[in-house]
Amino acid sequence: MVKKELVSTIVSPLGTMNVLSNNEVSLLQDTNQGGLYPLFRQCALAVLNCDETSDNPYNVMEEFDSFDIRIVQEHRGLKLELINAPGSAFVDGRIIKGIRQSLFCVVRDILYVSSELKGSPRFDNGDSTSLTDLVFHILRNAKAFLPKQLPNVVVCWGGHSIGQGEYKYTKKVGYQLGLRGLDICTGCGPGAMKGPMKGANLGHAKQRISNSRFIGITEPGIIAAESPNPIVNQLIIMPDIEKRLEAFVRFGHGIIIFPGGPGTCEEILYLLGILLHPDNEHIPFPLIFTGPSESVGYFEQIDRFIGNTLGPQAQRRYNIIIDDPREVAQQMKSGLDKVTRFRRSTGDAYYYNWLLRTEEIFQAPFEPTHESMEALQLDRDQPAHMLAANLRRAMSGVVAGNVKRSGIDLIRARGPFQLSGDPQLMEDMDQLLGSFVKQQRMKLPGSVYEPCYEVVHKKV
Amino acid sequence: MVKKELVSTIVSPLGTMNVLSNNEVSLLQDTNQGGLYPLFRQCALAVLNCDETSDNPYNVMEEFDSFDIRIVQEHRGLKLELINAPGSAFVDGRIIKGIRQSLFCVVRDILYVSSELKGSPRFDNGDSTSLTDLVFHILRNAKAFLPKQLPNVVVCWGGHSIGQGEYKYTKKVGYQLGLRGLDICTGCGPGAMKGPMKGANLGHAKQRISNSRFIGITEPGIIAAESPNPIVNQLIIMPDIEKRLEAFVRFGHGIIIFPGGPGTCEEILYLLGILLHPDNEHIPFPLIFTGPSESVGYFEQIDRFIGNTLGPQAQRRYNIIIDDPREVAQQMKSGLDKVTRFRRSTGDAYYYNWLLRTEEIFQAPFEPTHESMEALQLDRDQPAHMLAANLRRAMSGVVAGNVKRSGIDLIRARGPFQLSGDPQLMEDMDQLLGSFVKQQRMKLPGSVYEPCYEVVHKKV
Amino acid sequence: MVKKELVSTIVSPLGTMNVLSNNEVSLLQDTNQGGLYPLFRQCALAVLNCDETSDNPYNVMEEFDSFDIRIVQEHRGLKLELINAPGSAFVDGRIIKGIRQSLFCVVRDILYVSSELKGSPRFDNGDSTSLTDLVFHILRNAKAFLPKQLPNVVVCWGGHSIGQGEYKYTKKVGYQLGLRGLDICTGCGPGAMKGPMKGANLGHAKQRISNSRFIGITEPGIIAAESPNPIVNQLIIMPDIEKRLEAFVRFGHGIIIFPGGPGTCEEILYLLGILLHPDNEHIPFPLIFTGPSESVGYFEQIDRFIGNTLGPQAQRRYNIIIDDPREVAQQMKSGLDKVTRFRRSTGDAYYYNWLLRTEEIFQAPFEPTHESMEALQLDRDQPAHMLAANLRRAMSGVVAGNVKRSGIDLIRARGPFQLSGDPQLMEDMDQLLGSFVKQQRMKLPGSVYEPCYEVVHKKV
Amino acid sequence: MVKKELVSTIVSPLGTMNVLSNNEVSLLQDTNQGGLYPLFRQCALAVLNCDETSDNPYNVMEEFDSFDIRIVQEHRGLKLELINAPGSAFVDGRIIKGIRQSLFCVVRDILYVSSELKGSPRFDNGDSTSLTDLVFHILRNAKAFLPKQLPNVVVCWGGHSIGQGEYKYTKKVGYQLGLRGLDICTGCGPGAMKGPMKGANLGHAKQRISNSRFIGITEPGIIAAESPNPIVNQLIIMPDIEKRLEAFVRFGHGIIIFPGGPGTCEEILYLLGILLHPDNEHIPFPLIFTGPSESVGYFEQIDRFIGNTLGPQAQRRYNIIIDDPREVAQQMKSGLDKVTRFRRSTGDAYYYNWLLRTEEIFQAPFEPTHESMEALQLDRDQPAHMLAANLRRAMSGVVAGNVKRSGIDLIRARGPFQLSGDPQLMEDMDQLLGSFVKQQRMKLPGSVYEPCYEVVHKKV
Repeated sequence: MVKKELVSTIVSPLGTMNVLSNNEVSLLQDTNQGGLYPLFRQCALAVLNCDETSDNPYNVMEEFDSFDIRIVQEHRGLKLELINAPGSAFVDGRIIKGIRQSLFCVVRDILYVSSELKGSPRFDNGDSTSLTDLVFHILRNAKAFLPKQLPNVVVCWGGHSIGQGEYKYTKKVGYQLGLRGLDICTGCGPGAMKGPMKGANLGHAKQRISNSRFIGITEPGIIAAESPNPIVNQLIIMPDIEKRLEAFVRFGHGIIIFPGGPGTCEEILYLLGILLHPDNEHIPFPLIFTGPSESVGYFEQIDRFIGNTLGPQAQRRYNIIIDDPREVAQQMKSGLDKVTRFRRSTGDAYYYNWLLRTEEIFQAPFEPTHESMEALQLDRDQPAHMLAANLRRAMSGVVAGNVKRSGIDLIRARGPFQLSGDPQLMEDMDQLLGSFVKQQRMKLPGSVYEPCYEVVHKKV
Repeated sequence: MVKKELVSTIVSPLGTMNVLSNNEVSLLQDTNQGGLYPLFRQCALAVLNCDETSDNPYNVMEEFDSFDIRIVQEHRGLKLELINAPGSAFVDGRIIKGIRQSLFCVVRDILYVSSELKGSPRFDNGDSTSLTDLVFHILRNAKAFLPKQLPNVVVCWGGHSIGQGEYKYTKKVGYQLGLRGLDICTGCGPGAMKGPMKGANLGHAKQRISNSRFIGITEPGIIAAESPNPIVNQLIIMPDIEKRLEAFVRFGHGIIIFPGGPGTCEEILYLLGILLHPDNEHIPFPLIFTGPSESVGYFEQIDRFIGNTLGPQAQRRYNIIIDDPREVAQQMKSGLDKVTRFRRSTGDAYYYNWLLRTEEIFQAPFEPTHESMEALQLDRDQPAHMLAANLRRAMSGVVAGNVKRSGIDLIRARGPFQLSGDPQLMEDMDQLLGSFVKQQRMKLPGSVYEPCYEVVHKKV
Repeated sequence: MVKKELVSTIVSPLGTMNVLSNNEVSLLQDTNQGGLYPLFRQCALAVLNCDETSDNPYNVMEEFDSFDIRIVQEHRGLKLELINAPGSAFVDGRIIKGIRQSLFCVVRDILYVSSELKGSPRFDNGDSTSLTDLVFHILRNAKAFLPKQLPNVVVCWGGHSIGQGEYKYTKKVGYQLGLRGLDICTGCGPGAMKGPMKGANLGHAKQRISNSRFIGITEPGIIAAESPNPIVNQLIIMPDIEKRLEAFVRFGHGIIIFPGGPGTCEEILYLLGILLHPDNEHIPFPLIFTGPSESVGYFEQIDRFIGNTLGPQAQRRYNIIIDDPREVAQQMKSGLDKVTRFRRSTGDAYYYNWLLRTEEIFQAPFEPTHESMEALQLDRDQPAHMLAANLRRAMSGVVAGNVKRSGIDLIRARGPFQLSGDPQLMEDMDQLLGSFVKQQRMKLPGSVYEPCYEVVHKKV
Repeated sequence: MVKKELVSTIVSPLGTMNVLSNNEVSLLQDTNQGGLYPLFRQCALAVLNCDETSDNPYNVMEEFDSFDIRIVQEHRGLKLELINAPGSAFVDGRIIKGIRQSLFCVVRDILYVSSELKGSPRFDNGDSTSLTDLVFHILRNAKAFLPKQLPNVVVCWGGHSIGQGEYKYTKKVGYQLGLRGLDICTGCGPGAMKGPMKGANLGHAKQRISNSRFIGITEPGIIAAESPNPIVNQLIIMPDIEKRLEAFVRFGHGIIIFPGGPGTCEEILYLLGILLHPDNEHIPFPLIFTGPSESVGYFEQIDRFIGNTLGPQAQRRYNIIIDDPREVAQQMKSGLDKVTRFRRSTGDAYYYNWLLRTEEIFQAPFEPTHESMEALQLDRDQPAHMLAANLRRAMSGVVAGNVKRSGIDLIRARGPFQLSGDPQLMEDMDQLLGSFVKQQRMKLPGSVYEPCYEVVHKKV
């Protein structure tokens, strides 16, 4: 491993944000068990390490084990002292402004979640409504809402590990979206999460849009593997993966799915699971699967898997468009117009999809362990939206086993997760995951993939 | 009483503020015991009734007893429905923008205090540090802090009921402050709280200052009697009078005292009490007493009272300047420069005076009742800053008896408050209050003043 | 005469304006016959001398005869070096920003008129259309046009020498106009030209209008006597009095006349002269005469004079409103709505009244001399609008004799101007002018007025 | 030729620009000999045809011969009616804002040149100083100057017809420049004139630079062949090629040369010719030749040609950097720092290089004809900077023969231009031009290049 350049410096916030109380500073610097320092350091390092191409969080942590971050309070407010930070965050010794901005988003979000929400009697974790409220509060505190803005946030999901052709295609789609004045929201990171923003950035320049929003929604477990790239000008760190997913579907107005691996699949299953709930049937939600010609096979596979597992009513919620960025953008735009009319007629907020019904199985944090993975109910004896929820959890476990520290540790210690259930369903799942392996969608290319799961074909 | 014009309409917020969750809307509309609706209605009415010249909160409430306010949630966010609102808030049927803005400040502050702070384990009311933290949080939530701004907030205290000559003088001082780029903070209301802002507004226009700050800090008990005038472009509602006073001294960088009555006297005693604490001796805090020639006698009286009670070390903390607005502004400016240098050298924040030591007697809410007033320790067997604290409470009770609903009710039911203590001190106090009565500084002119207090001269 | 404070300093422009070529710098510094320096110095001094209350241009010039102004070119652009400038333009040694801004307006306008227009084959001085074009170009170069702004510029005319009661009234009217979002345009100077701006400035503050326009239109002959006050944030210097008047009527959307002297009378006659032209009959032009109760007599006199000379069709073009600021503002607002609808329906620009027909007698510069004044045709053997034109010129001469250097010189040398014509008309004129003398409307109070004119009652 | 989509619509300007007088509207619509309409139509069409890849102006004109443009004056100001405009300028029927903005730049510049400068006695075309003044006035009118901005305008020159590898390299260099906050100025058009802007746009996004300047300086003769791409947010149309070149060297602060053809070569010779003037020797002017590895040979050839013709003192004015975008940006940045220090020390303006001495041979318009080309003095009996001037003209003629309508017409009628002179010099020139042909740098690929020139090897 080549020794990377390290930089130590002090950075001040952009604008007027981040005035902290003495108490908040103590919280961030608390290195005790339960203190915020480890989380703060980890997220800050991920933000600074944005040009890193590894998706192995261990590598990042080891490479920059001498990294430290401290808070400096002075008469003009808050500053951050960075010690041995990754050199790629700097240009000629000065930090890139986009990264500087994101660093202070980290401060904002982890403090807010910790000090305003934790322990507050207002948020009863067992209750679906109060969880939806909590997601709302975090987004509001991050100033994510522009109340008078017509619905224009397009969420782009897709793999961080995609080929050059697919990556270029995501840029072209982003460009067409940008020409139409649409803003982009992704999960941060490289690949399909970066391309649409780069494309939209060019489209916005041509349309003289100066208040572009490139929103990245992440969570502490994934941020190290999928660092926010500096085009992201609105970084939001949700406390866990389920709240992150809920943020995507309530904050975004339409979703485009590019090719991806198990993470993307988890997102698709989550979304379809919610849309399949009978209460949500009438709510418009533009959803497009798209990729270049070379991705035809990929989408056929996904479509077949959905058809086989969740049925045709799930397939009706999306369109598949191959190799036509302009058509994607036009369909998305007209879909957003429908969303606008619907919100206006129902009085639902432009900026937050209050009406969408979610059940607690989609909201409760799922901790993938060998036990919880094995216990997943993967059969047809349940409504489609519940099956989707369980399949989503299975995929979530695979993602954790691939790129999250907690998951990797478990796999190292006890071997692959075991997934079992209805044989036909297991067969479908096995095929899908196998194809991800073959297409190198599991991890960034360059390493041989060692599966973190086994599909157990139960005897009938 | 002439029937006032009433207007019913729907108003939307300025800018992008005030996105509420469904839960917050319910809180505001909760008319039950402990619900926020009565407080919300009362503050909103005060804001709308800004041109009202009465300082009798009962009159306001009776005059507009048909007034109602409701929250309308729709696709673009929050709106407020006003029913039978005072016509003076409108120009040709459209609400004055400054009033519209202040209405949404009401929403912001009472929600924040209620939902974010009440019941939070973070704020232990018995602890001085956490009370100071709480004041900080409310101000920060109101976006009162501009971290990079050099100290330039001049707090102006003085009576709501002053003569025409004194009023004009406050405008001239404000004009000179405005020419020097200083911002004004007052307690809202007419008289000495409005004049400096009007003057500074002109000074700012000549200096092309477009981001003027005219900050009004009030609290629910006083807002009805001293409505924020619409020049106030930053209205902040603190939960009680002690937190309001703490906000003034930690947020403001220097203070000018114009002639006033018992309320102003309470403010002076509060401030001197804090500044007299040994820990605060070295902290610079520009403090100027000023008025036109006709007010010479007034300030001699105040100065003598302070000398007699708190001693010469208290008198050293202020300058008295008669009839020289330019000199006032120049001294204040050079005082602020000292504050700037001090904050820079100590690292204390420009925007919040963390270093100032306050004791709990200045922070704990004082509820004036016949019992608590009678129990006040008004003698010299205590350090000067403690005597100041007790005298401050006595004045606070007189204000309540004059213009606050709770106080007026008590006086109606049980007669004047009884104040007793050291004979010489009681003599001084009697003289001071008596002079306020003579000079018509107790209430707005036009009514005969009936004292709400009696000074009891104890036998030795 | 008390010695005034003098200040020498270097000032730089606000914003990015005023990049000059080397050639332009030479022009401004050319002290030769025909060079721009004397004009530049004179206008700059007037701007700097804004708080001066004398209307005698000689006093100003003598008092500050050591004043000098030089241009400094450096790497960041243009600066101005001021030597022995009037101290009233400074606060604690720093120039008031509004004055600084106006100084650079002087540079802009005299350079533009000189270098872009003079000698250009485009502007043939004999031609009405090209004179109207020239006025347009000067205003455009001054960035006076906001194309998408609905008509909202209210021109306020009235005396610089008015009583305290009348002055307060102009503030109240300005306040009501400001509350309705209207911008103010006057001729610069004190009295009725300053009051409406001060009032509107307060109204705008309450309505949170941050892009207020307080436009002052002046010309080199009058600027020394009527210095632009620093609230004026858009100073425009037209090359002569006729182009200034044309700028008022084509740029303004409605006009309010406050009490004044011969200058105001000149403006009224100019405006009515144009409106009486048959081609202009259908063009809406809101025109209101207003003052406090004490001014009733004044307006009766003016009204009678107009009735006697120009007849009832002239009287139909204005409303007289006594002591009702709100009514004035409401009528003006609804008049502007009519203007808006008219412009929209005819396609005439919101920002410049192209349709208004002016004849050359209103545009050609009138140089008042004993000969030209005596030669004026002051009788009824001409259409009403031509009589208005000639009466306007007579008034113009009186103004010159009162407060302009050229006029004062002539009167000193050769005695009062002689005005002669139709006996009845002369009688009316004599009465009107006599009443101005009696009411102290000729000059600022404090001096005994020596008439600069004589009305010669020709024998029949 | 496939039939292109045509769109007819009305567009209004962005912001508040472009208020026209009636007279100016007539000028633009004047289709007579000498009227502005043909020029206006041609430039507008070039702007609208921005995605066109042909560099043959005849194709453009023929393809859109039904295109028309008209001016609509209405109450809100100026609009443009487009009839049968190229569909590529529109997204879903709405014009791209960047193109809309550029359209109004066309109006601004051709009106200014025509009505303000032509016929003005101020600009005597024979005089070098007044030509430099004229370039200044056009740039100032286009609001190209930001007086307080430190020198940061990097001019990028290079071919419109370059390979994919070279194009990607220009983007990378632009990205590194953008990360360092530098603005880009090019000659409009595709290839090396577009790549750096796209790259810088991304760099600016990461650095949160919202006031990016992407300046395109063109002239009527070239605009049709090299349409401004819509990232250009500051389009300036100079009246002829010599003033365009002068604008580049006086407005730009440093220059980067990418691979190109004869146009780029013309630019290099122009610049070196000026820098070689003895008066300019001490003036810092950062100049870098750069390209990817594959361009090594190209730059060796150029460098050799310069060495052979203008000598080593010319070679000392530039650095050649191969395949190192970061190094290019760092050297440029430090070169700009030198420029800044030099301007500050000499008092020369940051925004316009007044000190640079140009001789009239570089300013006088050169009209390439068979006669003027043949008459060029191409030998060593002249100072280096004069030889550079003549070689520059030779290259200019080649460009005209390749892509300008006037030149193409001449070649069609009378065959190739004849160039003759010193044999060795002719040999060098022949080699250079021959290599451009071989490397397909003469015209866009896809067509066989037919030379528009012949190098005549005179017998000694």
